[in-house]
Amino acid sequence: MNYFEIIGFLAAILTTVSFFPQVIKIYRTRETKSISLTMYIVLTFGILLWLIYGLHLESMPMILANALTLFFLFYILLMKIKYK
Amino acid sequence: MNYFEIIGFLAAILTTVSFFPQVIKIYRTRETKSISLTMYIVLTFGILLWLIYGLHLESMPMILANALTLFFLFYILLMKIKYK
Repeated sequence: MNYFEIIGFLAAILTTVSFFPQVIKIYRTRETKSISLTMYIVLTFGILLWLIYGLHLESMPMILANALTLFFLFYILLMKIKYK
Repeated sequence: MNYFEIIGFLAAILTTVSFFPQVIKIYRTRETKSISLTMYIVLTFGILLWLIYGLHLESMPMILANALTLFFLFYILLMKIKYK
């Protein structure tokens, strides 16, 4: 694995785990007022398409990263709908 | 461009533009309370690394999508720091 491949992997890890603090914050506060519902609807569809694209490419990092991101996004989206 | 390449492009467009409704919402409400600062710090670093990786691959879609996303994320991050 060369220097730039490490950067790519690190990018995938960071963009995936970044949503976890938001999940924790919502879980703790039960509050989602300033979060944009439209953002999470569009982002969820986008990540779903990245997952389909990753499945097509048979890229395990893409599949894992996007599946985990999707899991976090579903939680945020459901809580946004629940708490308004 | 085949069927799966269109899915990839659509994925890039959706994940990029998804942040725009959040930018608009913050601009209108001047409110960021339920947004996670940690999420946007980690996500910004992640997208910065995707941009570096895209520059290395000389992938114009990756460069454009990540540069625009970074622009939206900087705004959200700055407003989160400003309004708490």
